[in-house]
Amino acid sequence: MTDQIPVLEQLINALKILPGVGQKTAQRMAFHLLKIDKEKAQTLGATITHALDIIQHCKQCRNYTEREVCEICSNSNRKTTQMCIVETPTDVMAIENGTNYQGVYFVLMGKLSPLDGIGPDQLGLDQLEQHLKLGGLEEIILATSSTMEGEVTAHVIAQMVNQYGLKITRLAQGVPIGGELEYLDLNTLSQAFNTRTDYK
Amino acid sequence: MTDQIPVLEQLINALKILPGVGQKTAQRMAFHLLKIDKEKAQTLGATITHALDIIQHCKQCRNYTEREVCEICSNSNRKTTQMCIVETPTDVMAIENGTNYQGVYFVLMGKLSPLDGIGPDQLGLDQLEQHLKLGGLEEIILATSSTMEGEVTAHVIAQMVNQYGLKITRLAQGVPIGGELEYLDLNTLSQAFNTRTDYK
Repeated sequence: MTDQIPVLEQLINALKILPGVGQKTAQRMAFHLLKIDKEKAQTLGATITHALDIIQHCKQCRNYTEREVCEICSNSNRKTTQMCIVETPTDVMAIENGTNYQGVYFVLMGKLSPLDGIGPDQLGLDQLEQHLKLGGLEEIILATSSTMEGEVTAHVIAQMVNQYGLKITRLAQGVPIGGELEYLDLNTLSQAFNTRTDYK
Repeated sequence: MTDQIPVLEQLINALKILPGVGQKTAQRMAFHLLKIDKEKAQTLGATITHALDIIQHCKQCRNYTEREVCEICSNSNRKTTQMCIVETPTDVMAIENGTNYQGVYFVLMGKLSPLDGIGPDQLGLDQLEQHLKLGGLEEIILATSSTMEGEVTAHVIAQMVNQYGLKITRLAQGVPIGGELEYLDLNTLSQAFNTRTDYK
């Protein structure tokens, strides 16, 4: 008994594939798109179509790019001796924005999770091994997340890298800047306590 | 110094026009679209483009429709003697889903708000007057929201309808079903108290 007309319903259903968007939010989004400046709304539709057509994985680091090799990998000013291994393109953005890292990346596009069918093949570890075989690398920075799967992924990669005698580093773990001990989870607190460093 | 490639950046910016979507959510949505089943993601782009092309306002009630006259207005089983005046298409959906109302609608697509430049012209009140002049109506149900602007809008429409000697009704106001008095705002409580009805 609803008034929903097919195309409007299609639009609402299509919007529901976005993460965190349910029926109500999709409805609100659909009506918003119909209400605002038509050109802006049309840009969204066209950009999605265009982006899906043109964006692919960088042949070297697997990050998203519209070229064969992404901007970072093809930038001759970046140090190719350092490679930072991250889980997602968002992690690349975060490190680019938050640090002055000048090396290159390798984007796993996930983390080892056998139950979800994500094994070494899905993470491009064979491609990573090609990089290692080519040589020229000095340091591998393991910047996978601090979760169980992230640690396992880091461990597996470290074992692989070890055969090539490279320096392997892992992001420091401990109390976040501005973090109060009271609200810290016990694992982090215990880890930070046990790996305490000399006060400078 | 970010790795954001133009098309990806365009996609993220385009997604930000959605209501409640900022930079972080847009990023998450963009990566989600690139990660999921390509066909589904493409459907979203195509559906937005298609919907914007095809969806227009119903010539009779101003609701969104892909036809000249919407499904409700062209349904000969609906009572054309009752007209429910609402602010948005979402309100039509809510009334269709929550009540067994069998009349027709008139969708204002907003409420009077002179500061935002929304006057009688933007709400199609001239079109509403045409309906009234045509005759055949018996009851006008004012279902605008219970906000200040909604009340003003209802008042202005009531004045217009009054000239035609039709029955005018307004949705009942009071304690929501399941609502506890303790948590009710004072305006609602006072209104509900003053307009108390005989206990059946």
